Parts: sequence; structure tokens; C-alpha cells
Amino acid sequence: MIKVGIIGGTGYTGSELLRILAKHEKCEVKCVSSRKEKGKKIHEVHPHLKGFYNIEFVEPEFRIFSECDVVFTAVPHGEAIRYVPELYESGVRVIDLSADYRLSKEKYEEVYGKEHSAYIEAVYGLTEINKDEIRGARLIANPGCYPTGAILSAAPLAKLELIERVVFDSKSGITGAGVAPTEFTHYPNLHESIVPYRITEHRHYYEMEQELRKFQEDVKISFTPQVFPGSRGILTNAHIFLKGDLEGEEIERVYREFYRDCYFIRLQNDIKLSYVRGSNFVDISIHKGKDRVVVVTAIDNLVKGASGQAVQNMNVMFGLDEREGLDFPPLFP
Amino acid sequence: MIKVGIIGGTGYTGSELLRILAKHEKCEVKCVSSRKEKGKKIHEVHPHLKGFYNIEFVEPEFRIFSECDVVFTAVPHGEAIRYVPELYESGVRVIDLSADYRLSKEKYEEVYGKEHSAYIEAVYGLTEINKDEIRGARLIANPGCYPTGAILSAAPLAKLELIERVVFDSKSGITGAGVAPTEFTHYPNLHESIVPYRITEHRHYYEMEQELRKFQEDVKISFTPQVFPGSRGILTNAHIFLKGDLEGEEIERVYREFYRDCYFIRLQNDIKLSYVRGSNFVDISIHKGKDRVVVVTAIDNLVKGASGQAVQNMNVMFGLDEREGLDFPPLFP
Amino acid sequence: MIKVGIIGGTGYTGSELLRILAKHEKCEVKCVSSRKEKGKKIHEVHPHLKGFYNIEFVEPEFRIFSECDVVFTAVPHGEAIRYVPELYESGVRVIDLSADYRLSKEKYEEVYGKEHSAYIEAVYGLTEINKDEIRGARLIANPGCYPTGAILSAAPLAKLELIERVVFDSKSGITGAGVAPTEFTHYPNLHESIVPYRITEHRHYYEMEQELRKFQEDVKISFTPQVFPGSRGILTNAHIFLKGDLEGEEIERVYREFYRDCYFIRLQNDIKLSYVRGSNFVDISIHKGKDRVVVVTAIDNLVKGASGQAVQNMNVMFGLDEREGLDFPPLFP
Amino acid sequence: MIKVGIIGGTGYTGSELLRILAKHEKCEVKCVSSRKEKGKKIHEVHPHLKGFYNIEFVEPEFRIFSECDVVFTAVPHGEAIRYVPELYESGVRVIDLSADYRLSKEKYEEVYGKEHSAYIEAVYGLTEINKDEIRGARLIANPGCYPTGAILSAAPLAKLELIERVVFDSKSGITGAGVAPTEFTHYPNLHESIVPYRITEHRHYYEMEQELRKFQEDVKISFTPQVFPGSRGILTNAHIFLKGDLEGEEIERVYREFYRDCYFIRLQNDIKLSYVRGSNFVDISIHKGKDRVVVVTAIDNLVKGASGQAVQNMNVMFGLDEREGLDFPPLFP
Repeated sequence: MIKVGIIGGTGYTGSELLRILAKHEKCEVKCVSSRKEKGKKIHEVHPHLKGFYNIEFVEPEFRIFSECDVVFTAVPHGEAIRYVPELYESGVRVIDLSADYRLSKEKYEEVYGKEHSAYIEAVYGLTEINKDEIRGARLIANPGCYPTGAILSAAPLAKLELIERVVFDSKSGITGAGVAPTEFTHYPNLHESIVPYRITEHRHYYEMEQELRKFQEDVKISFTPQVFPGSRGILTNAHIFLKGDLEGEEIERVYREFYRDCYFIRLQNDIKLSYVRGSNFVDISIHKGKDRVVVVTAIDNLVKGASGQAVQNMNVMFGLDEREGLDFPPLFP
Repeated sequence: MIKVGIIGGTGYTGSELLRILAKHEKCEVKCVSSRKEKGKKIHEVHPHLKGFYNIEFVEPEFRIFSECDVVFTAVPHGEAIRYVPELYESGVRVIDLSADYRLSKEKYEEVYGKEHSAYIEAVYGLTEINKDEIRGARLIANPGCYPTGAILSAAPLAKLELIERVVFDSKSGITGAGVAPTEFTHYPNLHESIVPYRITEHRHYYEMEQELRKFQEDVKISFTPQVFPGSRGILTNAHIFLKGDLEGEEIERVYREFYRDCYFIRLQNDIKLSYVRGSNFVDISIHKGKDRVVVVTAIDNLVKGASGQAVQNMNVMFGLDEREGLDFPPLFP
Repeated sequence: MIKVGIIGGTGYTGSELLRILAKHEKCEVKCVSSRKEKGKKIHEVHPHLKGFYNIEFVEPEFRIFSECDVVFTAVPHGEAIRYVPELYESGVRVIDLSADYRLSKEKYEEVYGKEHSAYIEAVYGLTEINKDEIRGARLIANPGCYPTGAILSAAPLAKLELIERVVFDSKSGITGAGVAPTEFTHYPNLHESIVPYRITEHRHYYEMEQELRKFQEDVKISFTPQVFPGSRGILTNAHIFLKGDLEGEEIERVYREFYRDCYFIRLQNDIKLSYVRGSNFVDISIHKGKDRVVVVTAIDNLVKGASGQAVQNMNVMFGLDEREGLDFPPLFP
Repeated sequence: MIKVGIIGGTGYTGSELLRILAKHEKCEVKCVSSRKEKGKKIHEVHPHLKGFYNIEFVEPEFRIFSECDVVFTAVPHGEAIRYVPELYESGVRVIDLSADYRLSKEKYEEVYGKEHSAYIEAVYGLTEINKDEIRGARLIANPGCYPTGAILSAAPLAKLELIERVVFDSKSGITGAGVAPTEFTHYPNLHESIVPYRITEHRHYYEMEQELRKFQEDVKISFTPQVFPGSRGILTNAHIFLKGDLEGEEIERVYREFYRDCYFIRLQNDIKLSYVRGSNFVDISIHKGKDRVVVVTAIDNLVKGASGQAVQNMNVMFGLDEREGLDFPPLFP
């Protein structure tokens, strides 16, 4: 059994790791940290998990977590830096769900506006794209929720260097904003609305740029996020303007080929966030119009967009079947 | 492997059986019927299940379903009568999710306003209450969604004959109204509303009466259902007026004792439909006031209120662990 | 033109007063206070009101507000006490939307757990019940949101002393919890849920008791509130157990007679929160069952349950038509 | 008083006309048609309007409606053709809310796939753009809901011929799909989802093309609609790629100038559908990024996107203040 630690167990990505790992047959959660809830049982903070864990929240101490085989850091960006290097040095594998290791040092410092005091090169954990590097990795930078769907929707065409311009227009459930109540997450502020934010300058843009340019250097990318009235899910419309022209069927073939061995990618005619809810699937549907191709992707932001992909990465790192603990159907409706 | 058939695979209870049974390790779904979708693959009708089944919908023919060990009839009331007797006679075990076998013949005919042409005595499949009878049963009448939570919330006190009067005020997600679009399920008719219906005369009342009177003959019951803006879940407030007086702690002890060996019953301080969503759990919280006890129950109407309990009943019938296929955490948030 | 002041202009009841008074033809809003937003234009805090006001938030100073003919205090309970007495003494009429003047001094101190340093006897501003006293009043205690619907649903039968027991089971939109983000108002905590709270001991109970006992001294009252996933509205089921028996038609006649001259009371067959949304109407529907009468009321908690009723009270106080500024249709759907 | 008729009074645009016109002081609704509900009072079909009308639904007979000064045809496309020509010939002014007169005859026949048996040239009723033509018009083609926000968001830059390419990504409330229950409007199919449809080929595209090309012939337009979980509102992101470069401030100035005399256009920093709900306002916010300008518009699809704009057009046609009957604040939250 793989011994697992979770630093940051009270946020949504932490609780989602707990939900998924509760039924993972090859690993066991040994320790979960929370400064604030230290000493409480898991289900006292997460009543939905009552019956699944019998451990208490602990302080995020190196002494405790260094006994694990792998540690998930599910903390805000800027905070992972405090835990990752020491664990990494001691040989513990780390899967960081924050933004701290996703970009180059320079880009990180520019985008997040602070010095990166403890940079380590990590593998960008978009499993379907980087599976080979993940296999041998000791530190995974788990992708942002928006980049996951966005990159997967454009990568097959970018690989063929066919994209003139892509506009990603994304709609996320509000859990992406975290577990702490704010004006943004206040019910009446979202109800009967759909709220765009950081309309031309969201930080996740730089992950899209970084990964898609590996395929096609001159790709032009635009990105606008918004939240819709719902808890989970990110739907992304990739409006792709092609350099040349391809038939709809050719494009489908390109995607089918690119994702041939990818269990969690499903090409669908009919797409709906509730068709992937609670699951690690990425549903993709392709629509060829006269002016452009629209590739629509649907993911659960807390699963494939965060904790599910983190577990998938753990599986790959440890040579397990990537589906382990993740092979259950979505919850519809 | 238990060979399973599902008659009625396109409605919500049918699709929920498919979701749950996809990961049940002791049985295999052999045939699923739909007159309308006959010949289509499961995922063509249920895109969320893509990747989990490789069979096609078939006609609900006796020839096909009589080869199963157990058949779930997930059809509207009045229709189950067409399938149940023949299967039952041939020795196939049947779990009927409709209302056709829940009441006595006389009561059924009075309440549902039609003659029951093919009555068989069934075991009322409220697993926590009737586990012993379920074990040997050949026909299970799976309980209605409202009665499941309501009966479980009052049974411990009824067993002690302590109830003067109980008022059940229930709020259900709209999936209880079925998969076919109607004025009732039309989005703008439910949005920003909470809609009471059959306010003093819902048919599920008679199941509550039937089961609670087995415990306490003179119990007075009132029931009002309503739908709230959400897909899944039933929250029931049982306003219980007691004959004598009990301390809050005594009442908690009564419930704890009554549900001692019941894995799916969880006594909770904090109750929320989203804490049980997608799962077979029944969360119960007890509130002792000056005038009455309010026992609040939360279930997922499609799981414990229908298909999950049906699988739990199958497990008990076949001598399996009742948790088989059902032992996964709820999806919060 | 009546000169109006609003103390507390940033909360939901304050902004709703501003929405309604924007089109009131017999009064003008002269000053609106907010310590926090002092100096900002109204629409900088309430973007939906852009174009309707050209004034700035001010400090809640006596000097300013004492120039008004009437002041609405739309602040949390405990805070109104700081403004009401001085204004009252100076001859300004006051309509207090907080709980500070709704109960007797003794009851207030018991229920709200603090000494009432500046008690004045006010008229309880349930317009349909106390119109005559409101006419001459100088201080109105505007009713709580839950009591408004609850009292109106039981008053006609209480007046005839026919009620044995009434159980109020109420469902409110989340705006009742105020404008400040909390765990309670955090979107994912309400989504796909319906959340009961203060299940046997909500403070609004005492308003119901106080007002209904004026009609029938021995009435037994129970009350449980909950929030549903929506912004506005309170639906209350009054489960009324009668002393004797009345036919459904007789009961309807009692209500029709009792509310004969009440423009804002509508007896409806079909009831839905969205049929009253944004309006000052109280929709009532009556359902006679074998065991009890269920009287269902629907109001908009921010209008008839707060600011709309406050304006209605102002109209009555100043001898205007009670409909002035309030006579517009609800927003459905 | 202007005598108003409404052909098609049971759909959402019909009921919204009734809501708005109930308080319009310069006109009176004389007749409202519904074949199906003929003989019923208005509030028997629209309970929210109880107290506002005392007329009955009638057959849509020429004899009746030809006595009106203006008739609104609020029927599905293809059906308006049956009423408009005869009324038009007889001198009644007509405001058609269907799609039947929005495009040229040729375009209509191509896009809607049927012959137009009774074509008349109408004025495209986007009030802010075509006010002068509307003034003298006898037939108004009221714009589609999506084109209203989309065209208004790009027109100021198109007029300067500055647009290289614009991608409209729109999100609509479900009332846009009409009052009849369908799979699309079935609550569980929209809940926790956001559903794109007609992703590259929606008919409203042609209105955008027609109107924007009047300003700039070579503008490249792409359009994708989707529905979000809510009743009302359309939010449109116009991702505009400019030919040259403009500063953010210059762009704001362009918009401010273009909409100088337009009461219902509000430039906002903070944009939210609930800030315009129930009102005729168009909120616009402008975001200049490195790669493009994103102009976000928010409207209520049933008001500015349909019935409100229709009333605004009536006001202009009859020489009234365009705000008559429409000058009330939005309902937030």
C-alpha cells in the first residue's frame, strides 16, 4: 500500500482527494493536515465523509509527512513553496495542486508577482499529454482547472501546427473559487447570473501558452473565464480558427488518433457538464463550422481539473493502472 | 456472478441502477429493456455512462429476462403488473421499483383507483426495517422515495409507541417527477420557487401509514410534499409531538440503538442534502424543542429513495454484504 | 413630497427600499447612510440602480436625518436602538426594519439576550392586521420576514378561535441571511440542498406567538425555518389542526371575508414563489385535507417580508393610498 | 390612450408584454389572443398577473385586432406571417416579435428554409441603432434576443470600421427556449450544466451579420450560443480583434459617444445579469487586453431582448418618451 499524505485537507481539493482515495485500493491516507482543524476527526469537518476515515487532522509537520511515499500539497499558491522542497529533498514524491511549480521560475515570478524562493523543475501533470515524463517524476505540478480542458481541446490541432488563433471562453462552477466565503461566492451574487472575471488577464493563460507552444510555437491564444450558477464543472468553448481547411471528419480523426489510448477522454456528440460530474472524464465534442472549428470540452473542475488528475498522476508515477480509484461513472443528473 | 435484468432502462431509476451496478463486483447486467430505444447502445441514451456498458436496449420480453437471476422493474406504476407475475412464477427474483406491490391489494385499488389484476404479496423493501423478511424474499416492493426517509425518521419512536402526532413536511429534487418533460419539470416553473403539490393527499402517505402502524397502531400522520430547485435529494422534517416527554439525549439513544447495525444510517449534527448526494446514506439529525422533536432526514431520492435501496435489497436477498456496490462516499459539494 | 431618510443603505433591505422608492411619486429619498461606503454614489455600491439616484452615502448623523419626515432604519437588530429614540423624540416618524421594537421589552430582553436600553412602544406593522393603529403611529416595528407570511396564514382562523395547533414549516431564499458572505450563504453550501436551521428555536417564533395570541389565546404554535436554493421568497406551509371541523368552502369564505379590503392579499389556486417575486403581494392557497388544513403562503421576503411592507406602512401612516409605489406586477419567471 | 392588441398572449414574450403594459400610462391592452386559452381570464393562465387585468383571451381574429392602434405579434416564426399582412394593410401598426420580418426575403427563405408568402419590408427594431426609421415605421421587426446584445456590443467599433474579427460567445437563460416543456427545458437537463447548442449555425447569426455589415462591410463574425442554469438574461462576450490598436480609454470614449443619448445603455465597471434582470437596460463593460478587446453585454432576454424593446419601439413609433412604461429599476438580487 502506498502511504499518502495530504497537506491542506479542508479545502475543496483536499476533501475531493479524500473522497477519491477512500476507495482507492492501492493506497492509504496516513495523514491529513489542517492548522485550523487540528485534532478534529475528518468527518467533523467533512460530514459527507462520515464512515470513511478514522484519522484526525494534524499539523503540516515535515516529521509526519516525510514518512509518506507521496504527499499531495492542496494549498493556495505561494504556500506550497513552504512544504515542497523539504519533502522533495527527502525523497518523498510530491504532487502539488497549487500553481507554484507549473511555470518556469521567470514566468512564475512575473505572473504571480513574487520571488520564487525554492524553485524545482517539475513535470506538468497533464496526464494525457505528458504521461511518459510523469512516469519517472518525483515532483508533479498538477495543472490548473481551466488549462486542463483548454489545452486538451486544442493540443491535437496544435500538434499539426494548424491553428491560426484560438479563443477559449470558459465557464466554471463556483467551487473553483475555494471553500472560503467571499463576495464572489455569496449565493445572491451568482444566482441568475453568469459572471466573467479577469476577463483579459487570468493567470491560467500562461499554462495554456506554455503547453500549447510546445506543439506549435506561433499559436495565438485568447482566454476569458467566468463562473456560472453551479458548484462543479468547467465547460470550455475553444473557438479555433485554422490556418488551412480541414473537413469535420478529418478533424475528428485527428482527435481520435491523438487520444487513442486515453481512457478518460471521451469524444461525445452530446455534451453536458452533468455528464462528467464527479468523474475524471474529459468529454470532447467537435463542431466544424464555415468560419472555424468549435471544440467543446467538459470536465469536473474538482476531479479532472484538480484532485482526480492528481490521483491519476500518482497512479502513473507508481506504475499503477491510471484508472485505479477513478474508474466510476459520473453522477447524472 | 448474479445475472441481472432491468426492465425500464431509460428513466432515472433505470439509469441510476446502471450507474450503480457498473461497479458492483458480484453481479452483471445482462439485459436492459426499452421499447423506444431498442437497438441503441446504453451510452447513446445515457452519454454519462459511455465506457461502462457494451450492450443494447432490448424489448422487455419474458424469454430474455427469464434467464436472469433477478430483475429490477423500473417502470411506472400500473406497468410493473405486466412483467412481475410471469417472472415471479418462473422463479426469477423480482425487485419492483414501482408502486404496484407496496400496499395491500385493497389499499392499492383504493389509492391508485384501478383493479389489481395480478396481486402477489411482496416484502416491503425498507432494508433497515425489514431485513429479515428481505433475506428470504422472492418479490420485493421497493419503497417510495418519500416514505423511505419519513418512515426511518419516525420508526424508532413509533416502536416505543410514543408518538401522538407526526407531520412530515418533505422537499424533493425534481428528478422524482421523472425523465419526461412536463410543466412541472419545466425549468422556469421551478427556478426561484419551491412548489408544494398534492398537499393533503399524496399516495405515498399510505406507505407511511402502513409501515408506521405496524409499530404503533394509533399514530397520527400528516404529509405534505414539495419540490425544491435541485435535481436530487429529499429532505424531510418530521415534526413529532410526543405522548409523554423525553430528554433530547434519551431520544438520541433510542435512535442510536434502533439503527445500531445499519451501515447506511448516519446520525449527524449538521445535515445537508449535498452531504448524501449520489450515495445510499440516510443522514438523520434530531432536534428536541419545547413543543416537539424535529427529526430531519436527508436522502438521495434516486439512490436510497429508489435504485440504491433496490441494490441494497438485492444484496440482502442474495446473502451478500449489503454494502456491495454501494460503499462509496457522497459527492459534495 | 415626503422627505425620506434611510439609515443602512447597503444591505438588502436598504437597497430594496431604494429600488421601490425610486418610483414612488409622493416621496423623495433625501439621505442614505453607510459608514463604510460614505461618499460613494448609490450606484457605485448598487450598480443595478445606476441612473436612478444622484446622491451619496452619508454618515448616519442625527443632524442630517432629523430633517426628514420619515426615516427607515434598515440595520441589524441591536443597532436600531442607537438611532430610533432620538429621531422619535424629535418628531420624525420612524419605521424600523430591525427586530428592536417588535416585542415587549421583557420578551425582547429574554429572546435577544440583552438589555433594551431605550424601549419605546411601537405599532407592529403587519399592515393588513393593524392598519388602524398604523395610521396614527409615530414608530412602526416592521415585522420579521417569516412572521409576515405565517401570521397572515393563520390569523383568519385564529380570530375565530378555531385552531388547536399550527405547525409552520417555512422555506426562505438566502437573501434573508443578509448581504455579508458567510458559510451559510456560500454558494456550494446551499446549492442542491435545502438547509434547516434554528430548527426548534428561531427568534421569529415570538412574533408569531405575540400576534396570533391576540386573536386566540390558547393557540399552539410550532415553527421551523430553512433556506432553499434561491435568492428571494418565503413559502410557508401552515399545517393547521382545527378544534372543530369546517368544510373547505367555509374556510375559503373566512379568508375571503377577513382579507376583503386587502389589495396585496391574493387567494390563489396555484401558488409559486416566482408568482410574487419582486412584488408586495401575499399569495395564499388553502387546502383542506382529512386531518388538517394546509394554508400555503408565498411572499417575497425582501418586499412584503421587509422593505415593501415598510413602504406600505409609510403610505398608511401618511394617509396615502397603501399601493403607492408598490402597485407593479411580480417578475415571473 | 393607444389601443393595444397582443396576438399570442400565453408565451413568455406575451406574458412579459402584459407585465410591462400593465403600468404603461399611455396605452391600454384591449385584446389578447390565445386559441388554446380562449375564454379564460388573463390571471387564470398567468397567476402572477392577478389583479392587473380584467379581460379574457380571445381568438386571434382580424375583426377584433383591426380595432387596435398597434398589435404585437408574439408568436413563433412562420406564424406571424398569418397575421401581419392583413393588419398592416388595414393601417394597424405592427410590432412583430417573431423572426418573420427581420431578414431580407431571400435571406429569410434560405435561413428558415421556407418560402415567405407575404413579405413586407420592415424596420429592424434595434431602437438605439435605428431610432429614426422606427419613428415613421408601420411595421417593426423586433430583433432576436441574441442579436440585441451582440450588435450593440460591436456597433460602435464597426461604425469606425475597426474590427478584424469578432467572436460572440453568448449565454442565455432558458426562457429563450419558450414556454413549452421540452428535453432542453427539463430541469435536470440544465441543472449543474451549461449547454451549448447550434454551436456554429444559429439563425440569429444572420441578424448580426445584416446589421453589423451596414456599419462595416468586411467584418468577420462568429457566434456560439448556450443556455445557463437560470431563467432570464443573456450575457454576451464579444471577443473583438481590432485592425489597428486603440487604448482602452479611447475605446470607452467611442462607446460613450455612440450611446450618448441612449437612456437604456449603461456603461458599467461591474457587470452581472442580475443587475439588469426584469429591466430594459443594456449593461456594457469594456475590457482592453493585449490581444483583443472584450466587450461584455448583459440584457434581460425577455425585456430588452424581446418585449421591453418592443414597447420601447412602440413608444418611439407613437412619439412618446421611449422610457414610458419601462423606467423602473432592475430586480437585484
